[in-house]
Amino acid sequence: MLSLYYAPNTCALASHIALEDAGADYEAVFLNFADGEQRKPDYLAINPKGRVPALVTDRGILTETPAILAFIAQSFPAARLAPIDDAFAFAEVQSFNSYLCSTVHVAHAHRLRGSRWADDEAAIEAMKKKVPQSVGNCFELIEHEMLAGPWVMGSDYTICDPYLFTIARWLEGDGVDIARFPKVQDHYRRMEARPAVQRALSRQQRAAAA
Amino acid sequence: MLSLYYAPNTCALASHIALEDAGADYEAVFLNFADGEQRKPDYLAINPKGRVPALVTDRGILTETPAILAFIAQSFPAARLAPIDDAFAFAEVQSFNSYLCSTVHVAHAHRLRGSRWADDEAAIEAMKKKVPQSVGNCFELIEHEMLAGPWVMGSDYTICDPYLFTIARWLEGDGVDIARFPKVQDHYRRMEARPAVQRALSRQQRAAAA
Repeated sequence: MLSLYYAPNTCALASHIALEDAGADYEAVFLNFADGEQRKPDYLAINPKGRVPALVTDRGILTETPAILAFIAQSFPAARLAPIDDAFAFAEVQSFNSYLCSTVHVAHAHRLRGSRWADDEAAIEAMKKKVPQSVGNCFELIEHEMLAGPWVMGSDYTICDPYLFTIARWLEGDGVDIARFPKVQDHYRRMEARPAVQRALSRQQRAAAA
Repeated sequence: MLSLYYAPNTCALASHIALEDAGADYEAVFLNFADGEQRKPDYLAINPKGRVPALVTDRGILTETPAILAFIAQSFPAARLAPIDDAFAFAEVQSFNSYLCSTVHVAHAHRLRGSRWADDEAAIEAMKKKVPQSVGNCFELIEHEMLAGPWVMGSDYTICDPYLFTIARWLEGDGVDIARFPKVQDHYRRMEARPAVQRALSRQQRAAAA
């Protein structure tokens, strides 16, 4: 069985949704970030980066959202979560997810995690201030150049979709109005309506409330 | 034929080396960053992000290093650049490359590209100041938790190797002494000795000098 380590409101939601999409047999293990559980020895033995997600499999442990999503798509081919038999089309999926992790998530992270990149309080404040612009610019590019619609890759739902949805959930907190991006907003609503998304969100909310 | 758009001393070197490793029929197209060629309309039509690398194929254009590397590995299976028939082992490769793009490259980018994340001059200086520590921490993790040796994934050379080499070339400029990381340093020397690496580097240097 697969075990997904997550915390609510993190990028681990993308992998959680993909596991639901895949119909995988898995458990979701809640980490309490408020208690710093992600930096305690028990969890560092699982993921020395001290971050989520981590996916424990019978072969070993995987980290990093794009890699976990690709693994889920390849391990559950019947769920058709990526064009895994077409190297170019699969690379387009990977490219989108790589942009989310290396650029969009990073732009967002400057709002709450600025101490990763500077120690000075004023610098951390200056980073926060630019988040609406830098995240907004990323979503301009997604809206106009990347999101084919209705799903990210066009007519087929893929592992790009739960990842975009996960990051789009942060827009309001980042000071970016999703209504500026009609295709992203339509995608967001379409995702909210999916039973797999609702199951992942409600499991995470129940765990956080317990 | 494939066309790789690159600039010297950027992460595009990883894809350039992989194309040489693969024995691919390709051209390498030099972009003059000093003249801002990456932000001119001709190039923005190829890659609206205004960055390198971009790989033009007969199916369309790919961006983002991890996606391009995976595409090369899957398109040239005889070169055995990744365990493409083993979903878990392939995900381990993707996980390593995803860490390089989302965390290590990003830590490095705060030295020269701080204006992506703050406008304030003092904040940009504060970011520069933390680069030796944040990049150094990443390489601590690579040295002790990730680099199996002699290659990143162990006995088999993969698309992780040119990417690690590319980022390790930035260590000196980032104020991090590679000698702190014996396995990384051994890997670096092993890469420098490869003819494919020498060919890619010398093509880039000749183009930059022309």
